[in-house]
Amino acid sequence: MSERLQQQIAFLVEIDRLKGVLRRTRLLDGSRYENSAEHSWYLAMAALVLAEYAREPIDLLRVVKMALIHDIVEIDAGDTFVFDEQARQTQHEREARAAERIFGLLPPEQAHEFRALWEEFVERRTSEAQFAAALDSLVSVIANAHTDGGSWREHGIPMERVLRFDQRIEQGAPALWELAEQLIVQTFSGER
Amino acid sequence: MSERLQQQIAFLVEIDRLKGVLRRTRLLDGSRYENSAEHSWYLAMAALVLAEYAREPIDLLRVVKMALIHDIVEIDAGDTFVFDEQARQTQHEREARAAERIFGLLPPEQAHEFRALWEEFVERRTSEAQFAAALDSLVSVIANAHTDGGSWREHGIPMERVLRFDQRIEQGAPALWELAEQLIVQTFSGER
Repeated sequence: MSERLQQQIAFLVEIDRLKGVLRRTRLLDGSRYENSAEHSWYLAMAALVLAEYAREPIDLLRVVKMALIHDIVEIDAGDTFVFDEQARQTQHEREARAAERIFGLLPPEQAHEFRALWEEFVERRTSEAQFAAALDSLVSVIANAHTDGGSWREHGIPMERVLRFDQRIEQGAPALWELAEQLIVQTFSGER
Repeated sequence: MSERLQQQIAFLVEIDRLKGVLRRTRLLDGSRYENSAEHSWYLAMAALVLAEYAREPIDLLRVVKMALIHDIVEIDAGDTFVFDEQARQTQHEREARAAERIFGLLPPEQAHEFRALWEEFVERRTSEAQFAAALDSLVSVIANAHTDGGSWREHGIPMERVLRFDQRIEQGAPALWELAEQLIVQTFSGER
């Protein structure tokens, strides 16, 4: 086996661990917490299905790649709850270290590509990153709306804070923000 | 919300159930059986990392789409173990019915696209489908090699049958078949 293939397999073996990282959101049937690997699949599926709602033209393969790799850093850094202000203060530093180590298992040019895609996702400067981030918020809204408030209720997050945070959906996909806003308001008012 | 967006969201809500479909393979740490949603993520990641080993030039986005949707039919049809000859006799009929129902939740042209991609994967006629199928076998080999024989051992499948089945990897990715063959032989001989 070439050294290159060895590095690629070592990376694949390592990222299997993402299946063991738990998020705050539950499956839509409420049965258990979702893990970051199946969440990444779901986000990539949302990108395929909802691509037409991106505010600006997007390169779909780039969005899907971002969806697939955006949480890999959580293998080392853990899942950071978006409403945990304290954890969010150290999030970038922890995740950047994780990106260095985990993507660094790959051959150099692949390590560079994945690391750059992850940074692009975090920085939200391109239309692909903004759309991927919008979907990342949207699927959490759908999960919480289907589980009686889910992580919002469990952690006592008020509606105004949820609306303020998830409004970032508008930047990437205006029509999906309309939908998300409606779901959030209905969930908090008990209409769902 | 437009009727179109309603259909798309209904589809996304439905496919969340793939996270509850269990496969015969375990996570690489052996802790539990893998579900088909996280497996689909892993397969898509393998496609990103190992694209260069495809026997013929491939459209990577098509391969990734196939990886993401290839198991969605299991929501209705369940996971069919590749070495269960009896279950495999009815597999296609069960899965085709499932494809009709589940992809049919989408707006017509998306339903058609996803259904066609799933059929392409099943029929293995294009280089994309052959490569995706090769990776699907490879990731199971990696999982079983890391879990002391995993599903092969649990179900008493002899090495010759494993080699015969997984040789389909060669059709899609010759260099990866070399690796898989080595892993299979080492696992059965207890060298891993």
